[in-house]
Amino acid sequence: MNIRLYNARILTMEKDRDIFFGEIWIKNDKIAFIEQQSQIDMHMSVPDLPRINWDVQIDCEGNLLMPGFKNCHTHSGMTFLRSYADDMPLAKWLNEKVFPAEAKLTPYDIYPFVKLAILEYLTAGITSIFDMYIATEATAKACMDMGMRCVLVSGLNNFTSSIEKLEQEYLDYNRRSPLLTYQMGCHAEYTCSKELLQKLSELVHRYEVSVYLHLAETQQEVKECRERYGMTPAAFLDSLGLFDFGGGGYHCVHMTDEDMEVFERRGLSVITNPASNAKLASGMAPVAEYVKRKIPVAIGTDGPASNNCLDMFREMFLVAGLSNLREMDATSVDAMEILRMATVNGSKVMNLPDTDILAKGKKADIIMIDLHQPNMQPIHNIAKNIVYSGSKSNIKMTMINGKILYKDGQFNIGEKPEDIYKACQETLEKLDL
Amino acid sequence: MNIRLYNARILTMEKDRDIFFGEIWIKNDKIAFIEQQSQIDMHMSVPDLPRINWDVQIDCEGNLLMPGFKNCHTHSGMTFLRSYADDMPLAKWLNEKVFPAEAKLTPYDIYPFVKLAILEYLTAGITSIFDMYIATEATAKACMDMGMRCVLVSGLNNFTSSIEKLEQEYLDYNRRSPLLTYQMGCHAEYTCSKELLQKLSELVHRYEVSVYLHLAETQQEVKECRERYGMTPAAFLDSLGLFDFGGGGYHCVHMTDEDMEVFERRGLSVITNPASNAKLASGMAPVAEYVKRKIPVAIGTDGPASNNCLDMFREMFLVAGLSNLREMDATSVDAMEILRMATVNGSKVMNLPDTDILAKGKKADIIMIDLHQPNMQPIHNIAKNIVYSGSKSNIKMTMINGKILYKDGQFNIGEKPEDIYKACQETLEKLDL
Repeated sequence: MNIRLYNARILTMEKDRDIFFGEIWIKNDKIAFIEQQSQIDMHMSVPDLPRINWDVQIDCEGNLLMPGFKNCHTHSGMTFLRSYADDMPLAKWLNEKVFPAEAKLTPYDIYPFVKLAILEYLTAGITSIFDMYIATEATAKACMDMGMRCVLVSGLNNFTSSIEKLEQEYLDYNRRSPLLTYQMGCHAEYTCSKELLQKLSELVHRYEVSVYLHLAETQQEVKECRERYGMTPAAFLDSLGLFDFGGGGYHCVHMTDEDMEVFERRGLSVITNPASNAKLASGMAPVAEYVKRKIPVAIGTDGPASNNCLDMFREMFLVAGLSNLREMDATSVDAMEILRMATVNGSKVMNLPDTDILAKGKKADIIMIDLHQPNMQPIHNIAKNIVYSGSKSNIKMTMINGKILYKDGQFNIGEKPEDIYKACQETLEKLDL
Repeated sequence: MNIRLYNARILTMEKDRDIFFGEIWIKNDKIAFIEQQSQIDMHMSVPDLPRINWDVQIDCEGNLLMPGFKNCHTHSGMTFLRSYADDMPLAKWLNEKVFPAEAKLTPYDIYPFVKLAILEYLTAGITSIFDMYIATEATAKACMDMGMRCVLVSGLNNFTSSIEKLEQEYLDYNRRSPLLTYQMGCHAEYTCSKELLQKLSELVHRYEVSVYLHLAETQQEVKECRERYGMTPAAFLDSLGLFDFGGGGYHCVHMTDEDMEVFERRGLSVITNPASNAKLASGMAPVAEYVKRKIPVAIGTDGPASNNCLDMFREMFLVAGLSNLREMDATSVDAMEILRMATVNGSKVMNLPDTDILAKGKKADIIMIDLHQPNMQPIHNIAKNIVYSGSKSNIKMTMINGKILYKDGQFNIGEKPEDIYKACQETLEKLDL
């Protein structure tokens, strides 16, 4: 497939490169050409263009092309619990609502709910997800069937998985599809025994890979870990050698100076989830401090049962809003830095270096932001418009791996959204949820 | 005009009335008929229907009809400053950026920017606004020209207005159009001399009307008022008799127990603006405490220069999120209560009792929420889906005063959005902003 996107504003997300007018050509899954209009006008004679057999040519009408958003922490299959139980504290919500509901599910049941989540990712300009959930196979299959780029991460814990399963999944999923990779991880310190974490550390050392997990999400988690091991979760996990090859933590709301030093020393990343942290009253992460220490911060929506939506615009605004509230400083994080978290830093965390910026040879994971909407006007500063004022309604196109999966409100995923909604509703009825 | 909306889910926002299937008929500006499908099927013979000359019949396809959102605090004309200056503390932002920029403006310049704001209100399902800004005439004209329901509120202050002008505006604007009313108010304690506030109090007593103003938005405001008068802003204003006929405060972030008692005693309302309070690092309002004390809470976006978008979905989520964070309690405010704030309580604050619920004889200020979007699925609980997961992309129709002004992404406002964007951009160029 040869696709030409012309008459566009382009934000490559390369460091210090301003937005420019120009065009992008896509050949199959990659960006084949990206150039400023002034350069094109100067060096290319117009008759050249028709010689390429374009499958699709899109007049972008001055709208913005940029790298797709990287949703660095989610549990896609949990759409089955959206608005099922809210307004509850985290522990009660997990133990009384989530776990009993999950116990009823088969991977087959989860499959349509992952598809439902993918529909929403596409409407939100999300082009890759870092997904931890009980049903990896359902998640993998739904992503492959719909064309979603997915990095699975193990949710190893005492109850529903084993170190053997993790190793098998690691070897299996990393070979399946160009859209799919798998990273080692575990659910959290508080759901894994010390023995299990030690086994994970051995595996991490054998394969020399990074590891991700829920970390310092709530005060209670940190308190209980201190009681158990006399250390914070970050210090304890580091003492087991778990972070010897990098990785990072989801949430990282309640971190001590020592925890941040572990992150600096091991080159770990923080994945912040502000909407979930607000809704579940977990707290406000010290994002400004992370930025100051140059600890890379990426952004995740968390799962739809806790958030409840899968929308990077809401998250980006909240990264700023909660950080400003926490520091009592309206200048605590810069909008452009937040856009970097949502794109470039996300690619780093997911180990998808080919998706971080728009440049020749990179994967064509591209979104188009509709600037012809009232919330994107006037155009004083496009980055600030996106971070502070953007919404799902501004996503005019979502392209993953060179395929346009969503455009002008229409999905191109091989089936009707209504059929997915229906499959979800029927599953809920079957399970009596 | 006779409009029939059928095959709809309906949330009337009447107390304790569940969502039902049914239809609504609109005759001119009012709801002429609203009924459950089961009742219609029972009592009405099908041949009756064609006897009405329908101008428009809309199959709502199971989507939700509900009262439009009431944006109870905004400065519409300030779209000219969206993304012009951000990441600054409130006082510096006002003094160094906003006031100098505003000094360049004529009311004529502001007119297209109010129209820009109205376009965004329509995309967000906002059917009435409570607007305080320097250019009341430009705001009134833009709203009348586009069909927006508007309650102007005086921004009386030491610098740009006078008590005589306020009285004249009060008498003038309340007679002009069924879409327009005017309420007395002032900008804030800290921008009005004691003498000016005393004069306002005399006017309030003469006309026996309520008064609204920015109140307890920042810690600094409260501190300085205490230094000036030995009282909090709420107590000081009450001591002048300003609240003898009701009213309320915008923001109300930093309120003492005594302040809340003033609110209870005088029957005042709080208008909360969580996105602005987060972005400008003003703080988190004690919304759960207000609800507990039965102080009515309504919701506003604040102006687009501080927020920066005009989106009640973001505000509704943040009412819950910030309250939960403040109380460290994930159950601090109920989703249905938040929907009430965004609709019924808003009508009370704006003194628009005919727009609060969907019922026969009420004004036809109705929105349609698209439930056929992935973020509204599955349907466990529609109110929670809207508050926690909703977005502008779910607004399928916005009707004000019986006129459909926005539907399926298209505006019906007598001119093209692009012409409004262009007028705004040209004004900025002219002003060198």
